[in-house]
Amino acid sequence: MSYRAPVADIAFALKYGAGMNEALSQGLYGDLGPGDLDAVLGEAGRFATDVIAPLNVVGDRHGTPLKDGHIVMPPGWKEAYTAWAAAGWNGLASPTAWGGQGLPRALNAACVEMWNAAAMSFGLGPVLTMAGIDALALHGNDDLKKTYLPKLVSGEWMGTMQLTEPQAGSDVGALRTRAERNADGTYRLFGQKIFITYGEHDLTDNIIHFVLARLPDAPPGTKGISLFLVPKFLLNADGTPGQRNDVHVHSIEHKMGIHASPTCTMVYGDKGGAVGYLIGKKHAGMACMFTMMNEARLMVGLQGVAIAERATQQALQYARDRKQGRGSGASGTASVAIIEHPDVRRMLLTMRALTQGARAICYATAVALDRSHLSKDADDRKAATDRAALLTPIAKAFSTDIGIDVASLGIQVHGGMGFIEETGAAQHYRDARIAAIYEGTNGIQAIDLVTRKLPLNGGETVKTFIAELREIAHNVRGANNPAFGATASCLGDAIDSLENATAWLTAHLNNETTSALAGATPYLRLFANAAGGCMLANEALAAIKLGDDAASTDHIATARFFAENIAVQNRGLEAIVVEAADSVTTAPLPGDVV
Amino acid sequence: MSYRAPVADIAFALKYGAGMNEALSQGLYGDLGPGDLDAVLGEAGRFATDVIAPLNVVGDRHGTPLKDGHIVMPPGWKEAYTAWAAAGWNGLASPTAWGGQGLPRALNAACVEMWNAAAMSFGLGPVLTMAGIDALALHGNDDLKKTYLPKLVSGEWMGTMQLTEPQAGSDVGALRTRAERNADGTYRLFGQKIFITYGEHDLTDNIIHFVLARLPDAPPGTKGISLFLVPKFLLNADGTPGQRNDVHVHSIEHKMGIHASPTCTMVYGDKGGAVGYLIGKKHAGMACMFTMMNEARLMVGLQGVAIAERATQQALQYARDRKQGRGSGASGTASVAIIEHPDVRRMLLTMRALTQGARAICYATAVALDRSHLSKDADDRKAATDRAALLTPIAKAFSTDIGIDVASLGIQVHGGMGFIEETGAAQHYRDARIAAIYEGTNGIQAIDLVTRKLPLNGGETVKTFIAELREIAHNVRGANNPAFGATASCLGDAIDSLENATAWLTAHLNNETTSALAGATPYLRLFANAAGGCMLANEALAAIKLGDDAASTDHIATARFFAENIAVQNRGLEAIVVEAADSVTTAPLPGDVV
Repeated sequence: MSYRAPVADIAFALKYGAGMNEALSQGLYGDLGPGDLDAVLGEAGRFATDVIAPLNVVGDRHGTPLKDGHIVMPPGWKEAYTAWAAAGWNGLASPTAWGGQGLPRALNAACVEMWNAAAMSFGLGPVLTMAGIDALALHGNDDLKKTYLPKLVSGEWMGTMQLTEPQAGSDVGALRTRAERNADGTYRLFGQKIFITYGEHDLTDNIIHFVLARLPDAPPGTKGISLFLVPKFLLNADGTPGQRNDVHVHSIEHKMGIHASPTCTMVYGDKGGAVGYLIGKKHAGMACMFTMMNEARLMVGLQGVAIAERATQQALQYARDRKQGRGSGASGTASVAIIEHPDVRRMLLTMRALTQGARAICYATAVALDRSHLSKDADDRKAATDRAALLTPIAKAFSTDIGIDVASLGIQVHGGMGFIEETGAAQHYRDARIAAIYEGTNGIQAIDLVTRKLPLNGGETVKTFIAELREIAHNVRGANNPAFGATASCLGDAIDSLENATAWLTAHLNNETTSALAGATPYLRLFANAAGGCMLANEALAAIKLGDDAASTDHIATARFFAENIAVQNRGLEAIVVEAADSVTTAPLPGDVV
Repeated sequence: MSYRAPVADIAFALKYGAGMNEALSQGLYGDLGPGDLDAVLGEAGRFATDVIAPLNVVGDRHGTPLKDGHIVMPPGWKEAYTAWAAAGWNGLASPTAWGGQGLPRALNAACVEMWNAAAMSFGLGPVLTMAGIDALALHGNDDLKKTYLPKLVSGEWMGTMQLTEPQAGSDVGALRTRAERNADGTYRLFGQKIFITYGEHDLTDNIIHFVLARLPDAPPGTKGISLFLVPKFLLNADGTPGQRNDVHVHSIEHKMGIHASPTCTMVYGDKGGAVGYLIGKKHAGMACMFTMMNEARLMVGLQGVAIAERATQQALQYARDRKQGRGSGASGTASVAIIEHPDVRRMLLTMRALTQGARAICYATAVALDRSHLSKDADDRKAATDRAALLTPIAKAFSTDIGIDVASLGIQVHGGMGFIEETGAAQHYRDARIAAIYEGTNGIQAIDLVTRKLPLNGGETVKTFIAELREIAHNVRGANNPAFGATASCLGDAIDSLENATAWLTAHLNNETTSALAGATPYLRLFANAAGGCMLANEALAAIKLGDDAASTDHIATARFFAENIAVQNRGLEAIVVEAADSVTTAPLPGDVV
């Protein structure tokens, strides 16, 4: 079965879970109103459902064969991309000055979820273009911006992010691609990049590469990296693509999933050097790259939400249709739909709760990003910047981890049919796996959370956030609604664990760094369990306030399931972070140098 | 990298974790000695490492194309299978009366792990042959046994298990394949079977199908099912394959993994009926099938262990070779192997602990099976039968669940390289996924554990087992070895949780079945966490007793890691089983009939 964009769920999560309604009423988004959100989400949902979703299977089967230096995208993809860009979706949140629509990033985030749920390989390309737009708009000079931004914002040209080299993966500072300055102020680039997403394709008539490289006088490590814009085709005087630049795809990877996203090895300078233009100051490329990476990390988190949503929809459909076995409460011999079996219900409820919890975290991150850009109050902007920084690694890692778990449960619900490729459940499982790796592995995210985000503002950023979670748990208790079951106490305990683990990590980070790092991954999950659980409970409280009985019942049930079955796991996670570091740091492994 | 059979680890787990040494000294295995075990394991390890392991990638890429009704196995597979059978591996634990070696089932289980780790698609075929041998030896008449068992035991012919039909998956009782009696006492079979593993291939010159079908006078449901032996080729008077029988492969599935295991749709009776022979009594097929299924379930559990072992080896190797980033304690700018990073160590230690914990549970199940067959004491046989029955669903479900988790961690350790097919980590992840589904989904296993195994002997079977776990935790405390860290208390708590959850389920099983079933899956995991943790601790205690310092250090570290990081999760799991049933049973799902 195909994907139907869950527009109502998404709108609810944006408005009530992530606080967009509040932001709208505060005027953060100018004269934009809730109805505008609904209109845009509705249109996006239709496009994702009708145009993009049918491309998913085609893309998986066709892949992106490389022939004579050209990559052939799957049938229908160029037409869909062109229509998508023409409808203005690429520049939804881009500055109006460059032809964008200047709409909220959070709204764009919701749309990015839908594009990726419809077809992750399709949704991935524009994520990189959007990241490039951000870096160029923030760090590029006027000339570069005028020349390239309009085409990137319109989506007529796509962008790429080029960091990785064989010896420089998570450790970007180890890269060796070099740039030499020409007399005219341009540069020539030489080197090789690997794992370059959408490095070559035929969707657009130019491709703008954002490339990290090293100047001859660069200091070692990350402090010696500069960012360059390298177009596939150099531009004619009238701005149209002209001479082919000296950057070429050398080969593509045969991957387990996202078959329709070409992953390229790119070669620079085989014929004298690829012409590039410096973005920002020299040796300041990492700052530019972080601009790209931070939002790209949120976008990858949304891919996790997206694949989880799609897998959940498909499993629900299958579980309603497939008849097998007798119900535990039923008499007689007639088969019941497997959705009636408690064990299958547990799987489906887990899928739904994890998906919606991850969505809530991602959207909250996106609203914080909006606030960091748009708030008129400097303190508010600073607080929002830090909030976004705190939540970004959680949004990325938790969402992509649960994307894998949910896709795996989706297969399980299908039984044997889930392992057969034609059913489609297997593709989600294969596709989902990459999102925990790229844009900084989830281990890197956890380390970022512990070492860079917990210390923000001397720990005040995380403290303030935890206090907000406490308030939600308090409000659940105050609602005094028996349908919540043990939600309030489970969330309270989960927040206690978050507080204890945070205190322990903060106390150990500087002097026992290795012990703190040993608990980084379980800590990130613990954090997400508390945050996701509280955000879903907050959505349930909002639904009650709205007086919508059907919505309340659903939201309360999801929040309760999350609290009692997922947040409750923080009991064990706290013990792992706080008490088990030695079991990691002292254990020998084969091949250790003693 | 390829697989190296971990013969020493396996021998240790068999002897000290699963209690084979004790059984040997008790004379359970006649005059077999520990040296015999080592010799067989060593030979098996060489064969698995040298001959089978290289087939794994070939099989994944080649698959098993169906051409004109014939399946072409991958290059080298027939030669390897022939050599494997000729070396006597197929009949290792089969009765000597039929040409087998009559060696312990537990020893065979260890070998099955190695065959499957070397190439899961290769190891899978013989699992079905062995299951068929068991059913035929136990339930077949003398004539059938004489005719077919020698060839099945030698591996000259392979067997298949044929239960599933489109409407009859987990619910075997819904099958429709029909058998009609001929005047000569044989039967003609008509119908269709799906998902038939190794239903057709070119490894052997005959294939013996074990087929569930329904006689015309059969009562509905599982009580009306009979088991038939249906050879691909009917036999000539001299016992050689003769006329082609009316059973044919109709199509094969395009699966996500185990590409070299042909998964067939089989059609019976297109040309007048496939000739079959009744095994056991009519309408008593389920009992015969359970004979096949129970041991097959353990074998599938071993596939989980196998893929986890292989993924762990590969990840360890990669983590030792790959240099990236600076160590958290190191100074300077030189890159370190990623195995030095605490977060990577956590992944590798998790992989190792889960693999060894699952192995311990599977081997303990196998030794119980041996005892159930071989003990001279009837009470001991009965207790062992029940012990094996109790542990089988845990061995199957936990091991295959962690097989997936460990394979996924294996990809994560590889970073981007893990997602590239040529690295091999992705194949493990794809292959591993099926084992949680076939031979009874893991949900079915959990339900079996709660509804059929907990009540065994009025609950005495599980109580006795828990008491043994308590004793191990007690002995760990008594060892008073600081290297154990908090192992004793973590295991004690984990057993408390097991006891509490068991009591709750037992109390609710009859009158609130739905609530009990809602917690079946988390309960199975909780059970496995306590059991696996204690068994690893028991191995560590044995290593200490042996006075082998290096082995003690390793085993203690693994047991401690398991206890402090995995068994400790029982805190949350107990709450889920005991307190969260309502969150499952009362939650609405889209499409529910209100």
